[in-house]
Amino acid sequence: MPHFTLYDAPERNISVPKTAAQAAIEETFSFDGPPDAMITIAGKVYLYFAGSGYLGLQANPEVLAATCESVLHYGVGTATSRTAFTSPPVFEVERRIAEMFGTEHALYTASGYAANLMMLESLEKTFDRIFIDEASHYSLFESAKRIRKKRCIPITFRHRDTDDLKKKLDANLQLHERPIVLTDGVFAQHGTAAPLNEYTVLLAGYAGASLWVDDAHGFGILGNTGRGTLEHFGLDASAVNQTPDDWNGDWETDDTVYSAAIPLYLTFSLSKAAGGCGGVIPGSAAFIQRLKDHSSVYFAASAPPTPIAAATAKSLAILAESNLRQRLHKNVTLIKSKLRSIGLDIPDTLYSAALPAVILTLGAAANMKRIQKELSQRGILIAYLPRNIALGSQGALRIAVFATHTEAMITELVETLAKTL
Amino acid sequence: MPHFTLYDAPERNISVPKTAAQAAIEETFSFDGPPDAMITIAGKVYLYFAGSGYLGLQANPEVLAATCESVLHYGVGTATSRTAFTSPPVFEVERRIAEMFGTEHALYTASGYAANLMMLESLEKTFDRIFIDEASHYSLFESAKRIRKKRCIPITFRHRDTDDLKKKLDANLQLHERPIVLTDGVFAQHGTAAPLNEYTVLLAGYAGASLWVDDAHGFGILGNTGRGTLEHFGLDASAVNQTPDDWNGDWETDDTVYSAAIPLYLTFSLSKAAGGCGGVIPGSAAFIQRLKDHSSVYFAASAPPTPIAAATAKSLAILAESNLRQRLHKNVTLIKSKLRSIGLDIPDTLYSAALPAVILTLGAAANMKRIQKELSQRGILIAYLPRNIALGSQGALRIAVFATHTEAMITELVETLAKTL
Repeated sequence: MPHFTLYDAPERNISVPKTAAQAAIEETFSFDGPPDAMITIAGKVYLYFAGSGYLGLQANPEVLAATCESVLHYGVGTATSRTAFTSPPVFEVERRIAEMFGTEHALYTASGYAANLMMLESLEKTFDRIFIDEASHYSLFESAKRIRKKRCIPITFRHRDTDDLKKKLDANLQLHERPIVLTDGVFAQHGTAAPLNEYTVLLAGYAGASLWVDDAHGFGILGNTGRGTLEHFGLDASAVNQTPDDWNGDWETDDTVYSAAIPLYLTFSLSKAAGGCGGVIPGSAAFIQRLKDHSSVYFAASAPPTPIAAATAKSLAILAESNLRQRLHKNVTLIKSKLRSIGLDIPDTLYSAALPAVILTLGAAANMKRIQKELSQRGILIAYLPRNIALGSQGALRIAVFATHTEAMITELVETLAKTL
Repeated sequence: MPHFTLYDAPERNISVPKTAAQAAIEETFSFDGPPDAMITIAGKVYLYFAGSGYLGLQANPEVLAATCESVLHYGVGTATSRTAFTSPPVFEVERRIAEMFGTEHALYTASGYAANLMMLESLEKTFDRIFIDEASHYSLFESAKRIRKKRCIPITFRHRDTDDLKKKLDANLQLHERPIVLTDGVFAQHGTAAPLNEYTVLLAGYAGASLWVDDAHGFGILGNTGRGTLEHFGLDASAVNQTPDDWNGDWETDDTVYSAAIPLYLTFSLSKAAGGCGGVIPGSAAFIQRLKDHSSVYFAASAPPTPIAAATAKSLAILAESNLRQRLHKNVTLIKSKLRSIGLDIPDTLYSAALPAVILTLGAAANMKRIQKELSQRGILIAYLPRNIALGSQGALRIAVFATHTEAMITELVETLAKTL
């Protein structure tokens, strides 16, 4: 639903001259409109199969209307810290997230990075060693880097590899050391989900173990109610981010507290499927208070800007009430079926059938770049991801499917792709 | 100019029930409208002399109109990283900042915290020891905490005390160690500016020394063109954030490169006087590229949300063209004169005459809290700041003056304050 992408761009009144280099960059890298199934760049309209606006909420007219209403009513920001005054849409986001997860409360921060930086720091007394999926998002690595405990340099384990995690735990943990495992729920660049069910079973065998999931790309997509990767694997999403009453007591020396079930920690950003911006942490009231007390970000940084909070709150309301997730899943099934029909190998074992990013490895890097370029020349944008630790040395093509793609658009993509192979 | 604060709040369609505790917090801590000279909280209208919306741009109708225009045209966000696609208002902010400072380029990040986290990390090869004003903003301390170099635990010096800085430098630096000094330009909670002119003279005597200023509360307020505290002290704001061509070369071992003049580094957030949100770093093209290359924030975090970038760009345009800064300075002079006329001691030596935050220490903490409460009951909000390292054990009252306060509002504040003394 490219509601706004075909508008003529009104010439913005920019008095600042661009350099030639800047102008070139901006022509190549600017959206002239919101990200959606169709976008406009430098006057040319493209079918868009990239990024992570999976539900099209970034361009949803109801979201845009709510955002404008908020701008006119509340202005741009509060120009003070959250501990002084807060705008109501910020509280609304927190209430909606808490309701969705069935937790007592939630904390809404200006960025997903901020949420992750706050998280590990406030958990510092609950773990001794950090184990992290080697392909985790940078913000998890950044959080881990901030921890300055003795013997606490993060230990990586092989991407989505429960056996390797076990090996690393056994090789590195000393008696009474409590591990925390860090991973993305969904790996946006790989189209895969972490085997959280296997991890929780494994970690239950380690005294004091816990698991922290950054579910930026699972939230809104996976699970019956869109709560993400935990829900997808049958884990209790309402049990995330709880603390025992005696957090400040002897928890850190009592290895038996979590011998039966491991604590689950969860953060995610709202700038992907949720069509907003910022990071959130649902949890118990005590847990949220602990976060606030342990981080300068809460009381010294600006709150999420009011219009963005309003956009996010509206997006969350739509997410809860609409059939967008079902439409997305239908499109995911459709595109995988069509890609298989042109002879491509799309294994469902490597990723959940519900995940909207399809990763294709088609020969060498040069071949994939050629395919991406030819598609672009024919008016279709997909991403080429350079090599990384989980994709292999040649990188891969990434096709992102949205709820707002029509069947005709998907057909056009697959038929055009077939011509380039 | 409380343009929107007196509107009836449309009942937002919130399906999520509030707990009684949440409702109480929200009634006390929610603005029902933008922060400006007058605000509404829980149905009551107040004169507002708090926060840092010094120029009233958070509620400026032109800013709000530009924000809405941007929402309808570009949507809420790009749902991808900056290295893939960027919305034009983000580029516009960077061009306007670069033009204002006379630098080749600028980087715009989603938060001031993010800008500060990127900054020190990318400078890591240029210093050996960190010296920081004890009352600096938390985000400077956070940035310093991330540096894991040997012997690089931050050393604090007394608030705004050049002599103590010299003592700390001399006591801690070993031969060939290069110091970097971190400070706020303007201390928002203290109504004071750092003596940057003294620091630069002092630091010129130390080989390889540099100075990094977080000017969140100086930008838009100080200096003939609003470029902030550096400009206020006659330092060349266009010389900030430059790097030698051979950054990757032997700079780190060549103590003589900066023996004549010290490099100045500058970051600031745009959520105070500038009426927007996010952090910026003006600088040379090479310096900005270095920042981008050295931080995962640039390529892995969401860009500033498009509507906020549009609000910020418009605010910067107004800042450059309007007389808001002159109106603010007139109000600052007026309120200080009126406060002196009721017998209060307002020393201009402790802070620049141009600074819009007036700090009052009136006896014990209990007395100041009483005054704040009585003012609130009479419809005037000012802040009470609890004790901190630079304010002393009793804390202080803080009165923030805006460009949008009328003379009648300032008179009402001062006359009401006189009754409570």
